[in-house]
Parts: sequence; C-alpha cells; structure tokens
Amino acid sequence: MLAFRPGSENDHMPQSAPLKLRPAQIGADDDALWAMLQPVFRAGDTYAMDPDIDRDAALAWWQGGAHRAHVAHRGAELLGSYYICPNQQGGGAHVCNCGFVTAPAAQGQGVARAMVSDALREARAQGYLAMQFNCVVSTNTRAVALWQTNGFEIVGRLPEAFRHPQAGFIDAFVMYRKL
Amino acid sequence: MLAFRPGSENDHMPQSAPLKLRPAQIGADDDALWAMLQPVFRAGDTYAMDPDIDRDAALAWWQGGAHRAHVAHRGAELLGSYYICPNQQGGGAHVCNCGFVTAPAAQGQGVARAMVSDALREARAQGYLAMQFNCVVSTNTRAVALWQTNGFEIVGRLPEAFRHPQAGFIDAFVMYRKL
Repeated sequence: MLAFRPGSENDHMPQSAPLKLRPAQIGADDDALWAMLQPVFRAGDTYAMDPDIDRDAALAWWQGGAHRAHVAHRGAELLGSYYICPNQQGGGAHVCNCGFVTAPAAQGQGVARAMVSDALREARAQGYLAMQFNCVVSTNTRAVALWQTNGFEIVGRLPEAFRHPQAGFIDAFVMYRKL
Repeated sequence: MLAFRPGSENDHMPQSAPLKLRPAQIGADDDALWAMLQPVFRAGDTYAMDPDIDRDAALAWWQGGAHRAHVAHRGAELLGSYYICPNQQGGGAHVCNCGFVTAPAAQGQGVARAMVSDALREARAQGYLAMQFNCVVSTNTRAVALWQTNGFEIVGRLPEAFRHPQAGFIDAFVMYRKL
C-alpha cells in the first residue's frame, strides 16, 4: 500500500530487510503515515475517530499535542506506526495511552507485535508506570488477542459504547497493564 | 467562596432562592467558575488534572473545545458547574463524558444532585445514548455514591491509575450508564 518512488532506496530493499523502529519525522513521514491512517480511520470499525477526518487533522492528532509517534520500517518503507501519550493529566499522568496502525500490505509480518514491544519499552523509558487502552472495539479480536498476549487485561466492559458501521452497537473494552 | 460584589443582586438574594441551571456564559461567568475550579484542581485529589494549571487553561478546558458548560445558581450566585462533551469521536460519539464541580460553600445543599439530573436531561436532549466517567478516583466516595444513586455502575477498575497527593497510588473506576 506504500507507493514506491522510482530511484528511492525502496527499489533496492529486499523484503527481508530488518524491521526497525524509530521516532516519526513530522513532515518527512506524513505521506506514508496518512497512507496507513486513512483506510483505518475511513473504515471506522476499530478507532473511535470521525471517519471523515481529513489528512491534516489526522496527522495532527496522531503525532501532535502530547502524542509522540514512532514508525516501524524496513529501510525507507514504513510498515506501521504507534503513538504514545499520557492518558490523563495530574494524578493520572503516570498511565500512558497508545494507538497502533499497521499498513494493510504489512499485515501478518509481526509488525504490530514488534510495535507493541517497542511501545512498552518506550513507555518505561519515558517513566510511565502503566499503559491503558480506553476503547478497544470488542470485534477487533486480533487487537484484543495481541494485547492479552502482551500482558494486558480487560479491566472494563463498556456496554454498546461503540457503533460499528456493520455490526451496530457493540461493547468496547478498557484494557490495562502495569509496566 | 464566591466574592460578593457590592451593589450586585447577590446582596438581596435570600439563601432560599431557587436553585436553577443554565448554560455557562463564557466571559461573564469566568471569575465565578475559576473560583470553583481553582481549589478543586489545586487539591489534585479528585480530578486527573495538572494541579498547577493556570486560570486561562482551566477555563479553556472546562468550557472550550467540544465541552459545553452549564452552571447551577441561586440568583446571580454560582454554586456549581458541569460540562458535557463526547467521550470519543466517530463510533464512540454517542457516549458523553461530564465533569462536575460544586462551590465549597455550597456543599451539602443538593447542588451536585441537581446538576447530575440536569446533565442526564441535557445529555438525552443532545442525543447521547450513554454517559461515561473515565477516571473516578476511588477515594472520592461521595462522588461514587452520587453516581451510583443516579444509575451509574462501576464497569471497570484501573489498578493504581491515580496518584493521590496524600494516599499515593490508588485505583480509579470507570463508571457508565445508558440514557
């Protein structure tokens, strides 16, 4: 799903190039980030986000304000991204929140798994003591399973808190783990 | 806790004037709102808010962005306030979030109870289908009891998600009710 630019190093990058993570570069990564975020937000079935959000607002939300975005890449090809931010202020500022997105073409390659590991490391490095997901759509079983494998527990169930474009009103989970 | 202004109608307002609710007036209500918010935010034991937040930022948060603030008053005297906003966007936008503050001098007069009733009415009027509190500090037993009396359930427990200035790391609750 990522456009190959003629003459870029992508052309010479074997699929087996190592998966790495680095902080997102605001501006330079914007095209690739939006290419990943757009289909996810437009689908509206995993993120509680306005499906019609425009590019500028989406990029500003993903990597602006208190959000710190990172990208997973092979060479110059971006395969995924996550952000990390405080989930609350003041007495709740030691708990972070994260969001993850994987490029459709990179599904099933362990990109999300690598990003979760990196996010947990990054969260600890930034001094957070816990990580919380506020609105995990209950039909997003792959995400729920991935969080659980990584030590997250479902600590809350929000009855019909998510309006799924196909499934209608469904429950959402609050998931949490200490770091 | 509200300053009486000489010559204002406050001087002639008996304590038994009826408690009423109305939308907050940005600007005109700012002094009274900040007088209510400042001690609550400074104390840092109920709201997950930077205790050092300044007046402009506090007022902008309480009644800015997607927040719609209302005030409880007797005559010209403001006794409490609440805001209402979507708790999430997109598929979660039918669930609202609210925050409440009561003036210290008005505790025990049913102000909070009246505001909760009004907030539930207002939420329904705005088309919301549920109301959620994301981080109810577990030691805030008065608030928890008030929400429970008004039909809210504890749907999640966040382990040590709140750093209380006196009690240290304590649990917080996610509370929820349909409308």
